[in-house]
Amino acid sequence: MSNPSLLILAGDGIGPEVMGQVRRIIDWFGDKRDLKIDVSEDLVGGAAYDVHGTPLHDDTMAKAQEVDAVLLGAVGGPKYDVLDFSVKPERGLLRLRKEMDLYANLRPAQCFDALADFSSLKRDVVAGLDIMIVRELTSGIYFGEPRGIITEGNERVGINTQRYTESEIARVARSAFELARRRGNKVCSMEKANVMESGILWREVVQKVHDEEYPDVELSHMYADAGAMQLCRWPKQFDVIVTDNLFGDLLSDAAAMLTGSLGMLPSASLGAPMANGRPKAMYEPVHGSAPDIAGQNKANPIACILSFAMALRYSFDQGAEADRLEAAVAKVLEDGVRTADLLGEEGVEPVTTVGMGDAVLAAL
Amino acid sequence: MSNPSLLILAGDGIGPEVMGQVRRIIDWFGDKRDLKIDVSEDLVGGAAYDVHGTPLHDDTMAKAQEVDAVLLGAVGGPKYDVLDFSVKPERGLLRLRKEMDLYANLRPAQCFDALADFSSLKRDVVAGLDIMIVRELTSGIYFGEPRGIITEGNERVGINTQRYTESEIARVARSAFELARRRGNKVCSMEKANVMESGILWREVVQKVHDEEYPDVELSHMYADAGAMQLCRWPKQFDVIVTDNLFGDLLSDAAAMLTGSLGMLPSASLGAPMANGRPKAMYEPVHGSAPDIAGQNKANPIACILSFAMALRYSFDQGAEADRLEAAVAKVLEDGVRTADLLGEEGVEPVTTVGMGDAVLAAL
Ligand SMILES: CC(C)[C@H](C(=O)O)[C@@H](O)C(=O)O
Ligand SMILES: CC(C)[C@H](C(=O)O)[C@@H](O)C(=O)O
Repeated sequence: MSNPSLLILAGDGIGPEVMGQVRRIIDWFGDKRDLKIDVSEDLVGGAAYDVHGTPLHDDTMAKAQEVDAVLLGAVGGPKYDVLDFSVKPERGLLRLRKEMDLYANLRPAQCFDALADFSSLKRDVVAGLDIMIVRELTSGIYFGEPRGIITEGNERVGINTQRYTESEIARVARSAFELARRRGNKVCSMEKANVMESGILWREVVQKVHDEEYPDVELSHMYADAGAMQLCRWPKQFDVIVTDNLFGDLLSDAAAMLTGSLGMLPSASLGAPMANGRPKAMYEPVHGSAPDIAGQNKANPIACILSFAMALRYSFDQGAEADRLEAAVAKVLEDGVRTADLLGEEGVEPVTTVGMGDAVLAAL
Repeated sequence: MSNPSLLILAGDGIGPEVMGQVRRIIDWFGDKRDLKIDVSEDLVGGAAYDVHGTPLHDDTMAKAQEVDAVLLGAVGGPKYDVLDFSVKPERGLLRLRKEMDLYANLRPAQCFDALADFSSLKRDVVAGLDIMIVRELTSGIYFGEPRGIITEGNERVGINTQRYTESEIARVARSAFELARRRGNKVCSMEKANVMESGILWREVVQKVHDEEYPDVELSHMYADAGAMQLCRWPKQFDVIVTDNLFGDLLSDAAAMLTGSLGMLPSASLGAPMANGRPKAMYEPVHGSAPDIAGQNKANPIACILSFAMALRYSFDQGAEADRLEAAVAKVLEDGVRTADLLGEEGVEPVTTVGMGDAVLAAL
């Protein structure tokens, strides 16, 4: 069997430097665990725009379609704010999601015990928190047509369209139920069925998939505004949350912040199985490109490292190696190793990006 | 000059019992402060459906258009879950908002010092919190056409449309800037201009209204997902937040929950000035109809009482009397009076709905 293949798109801002640490960890798995991965690299976002005049070159898109997994760093930066909508760094990311049809965005919100005090929430509310938000990622209002800014009478009108088909809802619901079976066996689906017809269809289809295919999983429904409240009040009531692209965007970011350590959170975006049985997949840290600290060897590489751990688990069938890497990260945190984003405890000196990479390698 | 007029729509669930306490307070202002208000009452929501087969009778709608202010309790309940979309209790509320054109929904998120420990957030993150979210309320995706569930090929598609015109954005922006001038003079506008054209137009129009009419107010822009994060991380960074109907729904509910005491939070929905100079206005507590405790004399009437205080301030030009009522509520809380939703401190016995009304009247 050939080695699994990974396309690294480091992107902008702190992307390249956090990815540097992941490269070292990939090498370690190759050397010490005989886990060989065929790694290639390419450009995305502003970095691609600077070279090609587009945030994602067609050749890069083609490569992404062929590999077993893509690992993306971050895109965007103030330098690109003036660019036209159609070539903004984010368009590169959206094109990858759309053309690879990565419809299920897995956003774990997990609170590391050693970091529980960094949360703005009380320790007992977040310590031990472990929820998974499954956000629909390739449809809904970020993609629906018609869209644009048109002129009607003497004024302009901004238009976007939320559209969900039954099969789009059903497939992401299946992802959520599958995950729930391997976790706490509970799914909460969120929409606004009280005011949106797309929410009515969402609720109905999720319920149907549940009744026909996953009756063993506990399913509940919640309006998304109530969901936002409940996440802030007592997030531990949830196991898996499944919701649409727009609600998922806000809810998963709110949940991420609850854990208190954005620099720690990975994500996976999964599509349909390829010919080799592996799902189309892209992994990325939740944090952005953080232009204010880029190039300073300060950024926390853990979110990107844990994104690679998710790749090990969901793309490369290496659950045990993923556990090994995650345990190494937990150990480093328990030992009190902290990058600059995690300061606040007395007498702790921050380590650099490379320093954190060193620590994780040592723990491995 | 004639007395100001108020239409009370107590609605469903705990609506009638919390409104009962407000009636007592209105009487007190009439007796003791010679502030006479012409009060009328009518049905809304499930209560209206039970009698008229519609959640808002045309006569009620007509009355609402004529009074100086509407005070609404709450709508909805499990009994009405089976009803068709078109006659659900919420439709009554949405019709009032839409036909009165109440485009600016003012949602204060204020943390009472005496209640700071009820928040799931750490005390220093929320104590003294006082932000105002201005949510656009009569346009956007909850109202835009086309909408519905259609069949395409062999499957159904759920569709909703986000539409914002320049003037719709400009008028709610003005509401936010006006409020900011009377508060901390800071507005943060939230959208997703990075992925939605309606967000691009939103950002542009808010900026233009600022530059041309309110250059003295500090304006910033934030993506709504980042806004959700920042609200959870350090809400005190905000003064006034202005955002669209959908984002505002989630963000204002999350912010409400941060304060730790949903039973405390009022809201105002304001439209354009009427012939007498007063804005069209409806006031309502943020909490729902809480069917689980309805009719048990347990509900906290304070959110509804404070909604009436907002009516005194924004509709009846009685800012000083509004201050008086708000001070009475603060005093009651400092004295340790608590309804059942606010328990947790040692040795505190809950008061009833009526008991809380008694306490506020005594404090007045
Ligand atoms: C960068 C942006 C287009 C993206 C989104 O809104 O989907 C981001 O916020 C995310 O959550 O991954
Ligand atoms: C009841 C419902 C229609 C309403 C809304 O979503 O607008 C409510 O959630 C609110 O926030 O006032």
